[in-house]
Amino acid sequence: MTTTKTHRPIMVAVGGDSGSGKTTLVRGLYRIFGAERITNLCLDDYHKLDRAERKRLGVTALNPRANDIELMELQVAALARGETISKPTYDHATGTFGPPEEVAPREIVVIRGLFPLLTASLRGAFDLRVWLHPQEELKWAWKVKRDCAERGYSVPEVIRQIVDRLEDHQRHLVPQRAYADLLVQFYPPEHYFGPGIAVDHDAHLHVRLRLGSGLPPIDLSDLLASAAGGDPPPIRLAPDADTNGASILEIDGTVSPTRALELDERIWAHMETHRHLRPEEIGGYLDGSVERRSDPLALTQLLIAYHLVQARLQRGLTFRARAASVATVG
Amino acid sequence: MTTTKTHRPIMVAVGGDSGSGKTTLVRGLYRIFGAERITNLCLDDYHKLDRAERKRLGVTALNPRANDIELMELQVAALARGETISKPTYDHATGTFGPPEEVAPREIVVIRGLFPLLTASLRGAFDLRVWLHPQEELKWAWKVKRDCAERGYSVPEVIRQIVDRLEDHQRHLVPQRAYADLLVQFYPPEHYFGPGIAVDHDAHLHVRLRLGSGLPPIDLSDLLASAAGGDPPPIRLAPDADTNGASILEIDGTVSPTRALELDERIWAHMETHRHLRPEEIGGYLDGSVERRSDPLALTQLLIAYHLVQARLQRGLTFRARAASVATVG
Repeated sequence: MTTTKTHRPIMVAVGGDSGSGKTTLVRGLYRIFGAERITNLCLDDYHKLDRAERKRLGVTALNPRANDIELMELQVAALARGETISKPTYDHATGTFGPPEEVAPREIVVIRGLFPLLTASLRGAFDLRVWLHPQEELKWAWKVKRDCAERGYSVPEVIRQIVDRLEDHQRHLVPQRAYADLLVQFYPPEHYFGPGIAVDHDAHLHVRLRLGSGLPPIDLSDLLASAAGGDPPPIRLAPDADTNGASILEIDGTVSPTRALELDERIWAHMETHRHLRPEEIGGYLDGSVERRSDPLALTQLLIAYHLVQARLQRGLTFRARAASVATVG
Repeated sequence: MTTTKTHRPIMVAVGGDSGSGKTTLVRGLYRIFGAERITNLCLDDYHKLDRAERKRLGVTALNPRANDIELMELQVAALARGETISKPTYDHATGTFGPPEEVAPREIVVIRGLFPLLTASLRGAFDLRVWLHPQEELKWAWKVKRDCAERGYSVPEVIRQIVDRLEDHQRHLVPQRAYADLLVQFYPPEHYFGPGIAVDHDAHLHVRLRLGSGLPPIDLSDLLASAAGGDPPPIRLAPDADTNGASILEIDGTVSPTRALELDERIWAHMETHRHLRPEEIGGYLDGSVERRSDPLALTQLLIAYHLVQARLQRGLTFRARAASVATVG
């Protein structure tokens, strides 16, 4: 298959533990860019051992040994070059493998999963590396809520899963955070957790974004100055004390709709050429079967979109107004 | 202080993780022997660091470093010699220390805690070493139920505690099991756990007792033969494949009241000289604020009583019918 330079998609990694909110985050990209521009791939399809084999060998899905990392590397690199791949499939419902599937890269390729930043080869394939790292208690609360309500699990069974995965999580997932251009940490306000498994609305969650030094800068100084009123102000930007050259952007769940809209507006001002992409609303998430909205989530999704647009512009291309199967020079 | 040989108490260790059922188990001994014969001591009083210090140093209560093991050894040995001690006190409600307390050994000294079998010196002080090792999911279910209902914790907060203690549990508590003369493992029947934090009655729990090779044997062959009807029979005795010389006695939660009474009767027949101790009922436990009863628990308590009586008889002594401050030669 021959490919031209213009066919190379924008590659974005969305990594994180299962239940860390990857799917919810990606939904915002669909609202902005449209399904016709996005190829959305889950690395769980590269499981090498099915559920029964993992159980027999005492290996969790979080162990790279349970996954075909080599094939993952080859196929992610192929997609980055604009090539169509024939990828394996894994069925979460049954824990077994299905027939292979042809996947052709659209303008944006989203690679979700547990291992998108595991190896240098994988990391090198992406234009933007996002890692979801919700505060641990929050992640557990999500898991308990989902697994008990939707899958009929008991709390001790959920705890068993959490405990069994701790070591692999620490060993194989945590180190990948260091390679994220954008590290996304949702965390709860005080008194978020009620007795038992009750929790407050996720709309009230705060988010802490670590913007890596490799990201093109975005000037938010006016906005931050105008938001300086609160104590602390609901939107804050500061150098990251722990990571060289990185910044921390914090957005509180208590941010006012006006202030959130202002930040939204400001980010869109930085992508004037792409106003046509602006959707009615992002930041939606499912609370059980109820659709709710979170400003910190919306602004996180928008920042990712901003960086995808920047990556596209760096190639001298834009995302055109109408869905087009082949992008043209902007 | 001078002591004579007849003053030496029967020493029994009841070890296990917090929430493993130590207090419930010991309640049965009170029913059988009476409070006037029992000195009941909790090793948590030997915490060396208070709750705030443990938090600051990132050390859990399950770490021997957080406890004064040396003083524990000295005072347990002193009690075993029949001496009165002045022991430290720790207040669980506040997480701080109280004033020291004088403790004189009665005929039976029960030492509950996380570390009764930690060192050779501690182990050597006991006539009977019991370790509670409930199936892990069951222990977590108890903890979630108690901490959420009585202490207003959220499930993620309970999971945080479990996760933070895993390593110390594995490193410092699990190895003590090997030294137990009687290892007590309660475990749930199938379908015990419901969705969420709902669980079935603990009265339906099974128990697996590992009887160490050091214990005086007790002949239950008639009973086991008569119980052989079921498939599997509700009471089973077999050599332990994993521990040299040990046996495994299993008592199902589904054992019929008749069969349980038969086993109860048979164990009492082995301590004919102590019929006067036989209480109306043992095996009680608190389910929230409701008192319930479990046959496997009752029989476990009775087996412990049996071995305490044997230890007493080996010294040429009995537990007399009326409460007496000083035991006499039987």
